[in-house]
Formats: sequence, C-alpha cells, structure tokens
Amino acid sequence: MKRILIIGIGAGNPDYITAQAIAALNQVDVFFLMDKGEAKQAMIALRRDICTRFIRPDRRYRFAEARSPDWSRDAGEYGTVIDGLNRDKQAVFEQLIGAELQDGQCAGILVWGDPALYDSTIRIIDSIASSGRHAIDYEVIPGISSLQALTARHRTTLNRIGRPVEITTGRRLAAGGWPADADSVFVMLDADQAFARLAGADLDIFWGAYIGTPDEILVAGRLADVADEITRKRAAARAAHGWIMDSYLLRRRDRD
Amino acid sequence: MKRILIIGIGAGNPDYITAQAIAALNQVDVFFLMDKGEAKQAMIALRRDICTRFIRPDRRYRFAEARSPDWSRDAGEYGTVIDGLNRDKQAVFEQLIGAELQDGQCAGILVWGDPALYDSTIRIIDSIASSGRHAIDYEVIPGISSLQALTARHRTTLNRIGRPVEITTGRRLAAGGWPADADSVFVMLDADQAFARLAGADLDIFWGAYIGTPDEILVAGRLADVADEITRKRAAARAAHGWIMDSYLLRRRDRD
Repeated sequence: MKRILIIGIGAGNPDYITAQAIAALNQVDVFFLMDKGEAKQAMIALRRDICTRFIRPDRRYRFAEARSPDWSRDAGEYGTVIDGLNRDKQAVFEQLIGAELQDGQCAGILVWGDPALYDSTIRIIDSIASSGRHAIDYEVIPGISSLQALTARHRTTLNRIGRPVEITTGRRLAAGGWPADADSVFVMLDADQAFARLAGADLDIFWGAYIGTPDEILVAGRLADVADEITRKRAAARAAHGWIMDSYLLRRRDRD
Repeated sequence: MKRILIIGIGAGNPDYITAQAIAALNQVDVFFLMDKGEAKQAMIALRRDICTRFIRPDRRYRFAEARSPDWSRDAGEYGTVIDGLNRDKQAVFEQLIGAELQDGQCAGILVWGDPALYDSTIRIIDSIASSGRHAIDYEVIPGISSLQALTARHRTTLNRIGRPVEITTGRRLAAGGWPADADSVFVMLDADQAFARLAGADLDIFWGAYIGTPDEILVAGRLADVADEITRKRAAARAAHGWIMDSYLLRRRDRD
C-alpha cells in the first residue's frame, strides 16, 4: 500500500500551517510538486520554505517535481478546459505514484489554502484510488483558505448574523451578476475584476491580494468609492510581481 | 492600550491549531472564557487543553471566566434574540476588559472554528473598540472551520468544478427550502434536521458530528437513503453526550 497525504498549507502566511499539517509533513518520504502559471516559482518557494521550517532536521525527504500540464484558459469552453487539465494532471500524478513512490512509502501533496475549495487534488487522487490501478490510501488535512485569511486580515466576518454566504468565481459573477437573495458573496479566481461591473449596486467590498505575505495589499470600502483604486492597485501589483492572487468579499449595504 | 487577540482554535481536533494561533496564545496574559449552552463544559475543557499543550511552560497566564448571558432561542424572533444576546455579551466583555485587563496587557478570546463564520466575537469587540470607552487594539487569527473539518474527514470538496457554494443555517434552509440555483449547500447551526424535509430531492449528504474529536460520527450517501440513519444517530449521540455539534454538506446529484 502507498499512502498519500493531501496537505492544506494555508493561503500565503507560512504560519497558517496547522499542528496536524506539521505532523503530516513529518511522515512524508516524497513531496510531489506541481504548479501552474506565473505564480509557479513563488508557490514552489513557499512549499520548500514550509518543509524547511516545519520538518524535523533528522527527517529525510525529497521532492519529485513534475511539469504542470499546459492548458490555456482560452483553449475552449471552461468545463472542457478544466476536464482536460484534470485528466492530464491525473496522468502526471499516476506517473509520479508509479515511478517515485514505493510500497509502504508516503507521498505528500502540498495544497495552497484548503484542498476542499476550488482545487482539483482531492478529485484527482480519489479518481486514481478508485481506478484500482494503484493500491493507495489517502488522507486530507484541511488548511486556512484565502477566504479566512481575507476576513481575518480585514477583521470582518464572512456572514452577517444568521444570513447566508455565497462562495463563487469571478467567471460566474461576471456572467450571472449579483446572485438572487445573496447577502455576502466571496469571490475567488477572478482574473477580470468582475466587481467593477457591480459598482452601481450598493455594496461594500473587502479586497486583498497576496494575503498573509509581506506583499499583502488590503482595500475595503463602499464598492463605488474604491473600485477604481482596487483596479489600479491590482494592475500595478500584477505588473510588478508578474502574477497576482487576490480575492474579495462583497456585502450588501442596504440590510443590517 | 489594551490588546485583544481573537484566536480561532479550529473545530474539534486540537491539532487544527495553526502556528500563528500558537504564537498568539503565547502572548496572552489573560484568557476570557465565555461559553454557552450544554456544550459548555466540553468547550471549556478543550480550551484549557489547548493552552496546556501549546503554551510554553515558562509563560504565566490566567483565565477569567464569565457567565454567558442566558437567552433562550425560544424567547422571540431570531434577530431580536441574537441582538439581545450580543448586547449582553458585549456588556460581559466590557466588564472583563475593565476589570481583568490592565493597560499594556494582552487578552485572548479562543473561538471554536473560525471567528469569521457564524460567531459574534469580532462584531462585539469591534463595537467595543469603536465605542471609544476603552483604548483597545485587536487582531483576528483564522482557524479551521467546521466546514473544512467536515469536508476533509469525508475526503470531499466543498464545491464542484467552477460551481458556487452556499453556506447557510438550518433555520434558513427549513424556512426557504433548497436555494434557487444552488449546487452545494453547507449547513450549520441546524437543531431541527432541516435536511429531512429535502429527502424527496435528489441530493447527496455528507454529515458529521463532533468532527475531529474521538467521538466523531460521519455519514455520507444519497440523502433519501441515509436521512433516517442520520436522524437516529444524531438523537442517540445527543442523548448520550447531553449536547451535539454537527453540520453537513448537501450536493445536487443531477449535475456533474
């Protein structure tokens, strides 16, 4: 039997790591590293930093790096692109499991934020385990997600008293507008600043980029007042870093 | 200036604590303890256990316990009850800040799960800080919420690929039924098993109680198949422990 630990490492600040994740890191023989896009180097650096900081000096472990499948977001319909990307990622993980992980050994996959939220690792590993092609057992360790990092840094809550929260993507917000009956909406994966289209609505926004890192930028206020400032700061930061990871919470102002 | 740290300690498993929370615990001079309802003793025991495990032996700290305001959920309309409860809680916290926290000292409030999700501590402390009656500065440290603990233990994701998630309360689900256009719905604070009313819908449920603790119970499956089992196990566990803390994720089966 081969073991795989899918370990949430939190979103940005290495100190978001949990005691459970630290214990998991210290069981891993080989870490599978696979990152995508422009953030790749920063992400891999953070993962190596976390291993160095939190694994006992006497533990022996190694990294197996794989090239992330290259799928452009523009290659077709969103679902098709993601399906293709995940199929390719599964092939890469299967190859790593076959070549880099011996029976009785433990592999670790370090997931930015929380593995349950807009991440495909659980789905892919579950699909490999279900295929019967490899004898693997796996476990999921939760991590602090960007939504929690964002609200904590803004010292605000995700929900209002007794009210619901919607978590969605920039793509869906841009396509569908403000969700019916929504009160608080948390938006991830927004490359196109969908919030700007809602500047006519009476909303507050809590926006953040590189949350929990030394490069963190926070902006909060009435959307109509700060939308331009966010767009400007976002563009400048993206140009300076070569990549950006941001998210935001929108909240109706017209209700208590 | 008095400092207050609102520290998320995670939902159930003491190992959900983050490195950031451990560093925060080690700055605290006095912990304010205030718990409610039947879970009180278990909750306070968990908090003391966390302090014992994660605070350096040479640190001196103390606990200031306050009786939680007594408000019955049946005392009136939900919003009114919560407003009243929070007003009373604020008075209790102000009394603790005045009597138990000296200038230059640091107080810690340990919040189950994540302080941003269905918890009033941030709102109350912010309201005290804004009042100008006390010179306080405060910080929020995120924690693993029950929604993350639940999905990790079930090894499932919160969302489906590119799809939204709604986080809501049992009360709202019972009153409003399945939210329009919802795909995945995470339900907290459900004392009345609102899921049972949806057993006719084609949904999967991932249910858990006492997640991350030695008493953890997990049930997953097609809602129509497992609703009775959950209701039965929930009632038995509640009777055995005297309290229950559970939550669940519902997901439509008729979409990929």
